[in-house]
Amino acid sequence: MYTTKHIGYLGPEGTFSEQAAMEVFGDCDSFSYHRYPTIQECLLAANKQLLDYALVPVENSIGGSVNITVSQLVHDLHIPIQGEVHLPISYELLGSDPEVCIDSCEIIYGHPQALRQCDDYLRRHYNDVVLQPTDSSSAAAKMVAENPDQAALALANTATRHIYGLTVIASEIENNAENTTRFIVLGDDAIDLSRDIIKSTLVITLPGHDLRVLQNVLGTFETLALKPLKIESVPLKKKLGEYAYIIDVDTTSHHDSYLQACDAIQKWGCSLRHLGTYGVCHHRGCDE
Amino acid sequence: MYTTKHIGYLGPEGTFSEQAAMEVFGDCDSFSYHRYPTIQECLLAANKQLLDYALVPVENSIGGSVNITVSQLVHDLHIPIQGEVHLPISYELLGSDPEVCIDSCEIIYGHPQALRQCDDYLRRHYNDVVLQPTDSSSAAAKMVAENPDQAALALANTATRHIYGLTVIASEIENNAENTTRFIVLGDDAIDLSRDIIKSTLVITLPGHDLRVLQNVLGTFETLALKPLKIESVPLKKKLGEYAYIIDVDTTSHHDSYLQACDAIQKWGCSLRHLGTYGVCHHRGCDE
Repeated sequence: MYTTKHIGYLGPEGTFSEQAAMEVFGDCDSFSYHRYPTIQECLLAANKQLLDYALVPVENSIGGSVNITVSQLVHDLHIPIQGEVHLPISYELLGSDPEVCIDSCEIIYGHPQALRQCDDYLRRHYNDVVLQPTDSSSAAAKMVAENPDQAALALANTATRHIYGLTVIASEIENNAENTTRFIVLGDDAIDLSRDIIKSTLVITLPGHDLRVLQNVLGTFETLALKPLKIESVPLKKKLGEYAYIIDVDTTSHHDSYLQACDAIQKWGCSLRHLGTYGVCHHRGCDE
Repeated sequence: MYTTKHIGYLGPEGTFSEQAAMEVFGDCDSFSYHRYPTIQECLLAANKQLLDYALVPVENSIGGSVNITVSQLVHDLHIPIQGEVHLPISYELLGSDPEVCIDSCEIIYGHPQALRQCDDYLRRHYNDVVLQPTDSSSAAAKMVAENPDQAALALANTATRHIYGLTVIASEIENNAENTTRFIVLGDDAIDLSRDIIKSTLVITLPGHDLRVLQNVLGTFETLALKPLKIESVPLKKKLGEYAYIIDVDTTSHHDSYLQACDAIQKWGCSLRHLGTYGVCHHRGCDE
């Protein structure tokens, strides 16, 4: 006897989110997968307890933070982070009719992050073409597949190309060959993810929004031999200049120190919310 | 005798960028205004010396940083910041036929930042409606004006409503009444902007990408009695976890201390680029 676990991610079929979900959870009878048209709807379903786990992109090495995910982490979500997986990302430029499209392309569909991650190539070869944002890379491929008469191309991945039967116009067109996206898994229960490091994430606000207190926060980490990995300012959505700070800390063998740090940071007058302590799997397969 | 100054901003007619440009430069014969369809094209023109000044949005109090502007500041632009202006932002929901649209609206057009700044209202009243991103608020209004048969609404401002002859369905629908966008002016020559404070902006990278050095950087500001106003991590676009930090510092009466701080920060092993020292005008009219 086992209970089916419900797992949500950004669909449709063939997205990088789907690949990441397969890497974390695998194709197993005890999992039921649910595809959402937007990250926001996926996170909303998780927040409403309609899912056991939601897997969403949080940052890309070229495009930077996924604003909607980071904003929801700080403002709306009350589910902890249970794991993180890093996925290498490579894009193809796809068409339904390569003869027409290479020279006469008028519009390129792509997710805003995809457009950003490939903008060097697009500016070089398609400078006068309209770049039309879509909700996902798969939605971009679908637009091209369903409108063969349009002089359009899509930025998408290999999986999506197979699903929609499109032709490769160009491949590996991302600005940087080390292009990587990190995804986080949110859920109430721990997951057993083979991992490279253990990370903890916290959100703080500074007393009086005074950035000088951040020096004390960093000093606390230093004193307790904890290594901060990322600090990101996120608008509090009230007044310009008022931010929360989302901080990732390497806590691989330092869980007690981390708890001490949380105490100390609150003593500096900061508000603090712990978002999770979780395994990070740096590469595909999660077992290399 | 005077020379015409060429000023670029995000068009078309009626954008908040246009309002901000009028506040900074005013309607004067010695200025020639140039509207660009995207922020990227405006900044590219400035970088190619086709403009004397480019005015672009850099941050909104609800939506956060304008990624394209921040990324270009760190990676591509070699023109200093000469001024900053804060503009109150309020949105209206506009239609060509209110009778049809209030209940039967199928699609809402808006700039991604506008959609984000009004998402509380949109989720409450238009939860099942497609939200379609456009390049600007004016482009959203234009879509609605030119397609009166579509059950569509636009998120835009009062100026745009007048230009396209649309009807107000709802007004002041932003999540927060203090909604403000800050715009920066880039150019080679100083501008005479009446100002509330003087700010300096620098971009640094940390040696070995070790965030612990940020503590030393903040310590340097503290020692020299300089107040940092914002720190933002911006991906270096190479590997995950490698960032530049763009830092705004209040240097109202501390220019010498700022120069000392820049020296000291470089001695900590950081690379450093100064993006400008400039006046900040907090409110419309620039003379209140």
